[in-house]
Amino acid sequence: MERVPVLKIGEILLVSIQIDMEDQVALQLQEDLAERIVATGVGGVIIDISALDIVDSFVGRTLATIASVSRVLDAETVVVGMRPAVAITLVELGLSLPGIRTALNVELGIAMLAREDEVVDLLGDEDDTDQAAEPTP
Amino acid sequence: MERVPVLKIGEILLVSIQIDMEDQVALQLQEDLAERIVATGVGGVIIDISALDIVDSFVGRTLATIASVSRVLDAETVVVGMRPAVAITLVELGLSLPGIRTALNVELGIAMLAREDEVVDLLGDEDDTDQAAEPTP
Repeated sequence: MERVPVLKIGEILLVSIQIDMEDQVALQLQEDLAERIVATGVGGVIIDISALDIVDSFVGRTLATIASVSRVLDAETVVVGMRPAVAITLVELGLSLPGIRTALNVELGIAMLAREDEVVDLLGDEDDTDQAAEPTP
Repeated sequence: MERVPVLKIGEILLVSIQIDMEDQVALQLQEDLAERIVATGVGGVIIDISALDIVDSFVGRTLATIASVSRVLDAETVVVGMRPAVAITLVELGLSLPGIRTALNVELGIAMLAREDEVVDLLGDEDDTDQAAEPTP
């Protein structure tokens, strides 16, 4: 079975979705992510969907579920890389992805997480160094 | 056509290969990566192959070409996430990926790039470099 890899980078987990999110793949990803969040104790999850041409209601629901599960586990989720056409289609379908935060790309997603949480700022901005200097639990 | 996304994170470009590397996909990735390296001026490229069950000679050659092109453009390439079975098969096939540097996972790959180059240490913690160098059991 195909499986979406979960990459740990500093204080975030990065998921780049490139394959069709069928039921099994989506469920496996939810499970993998939840396990990795608990195992690593990261504060943020970034899901890149720049490779997806289509985001239907199933994928939208999957993303929302992932975000909810992550939040319960004390990790914020940001969806990044949505194509303009995908955004237009989503809104036309009435799917505005409530509860899901988005950013244009991975870097802006990391910056968003760094601003709001005690997630280490991976981009190395000087302003955030006091936050970044704090020991992670 | 399917396309492998290239994600910029700080001073590196991250590519997570999850789909079959057919000719067109591989060529497109080489092109995309070269363009992004020039456009962003990053010093490192990390290619995650943890989703690949099989790395045949074509994929091996593709990785080697990407590494060579990146080097010409002044960016180092590290291949990360190779599965044990893939490594065994590669060696049995006589493909030892000469000229390609590898690391266990994305974090260790970033640490490797940070040690050797002036690439910004995305992990942020200087003390961890010794730990990071240790192989995980």
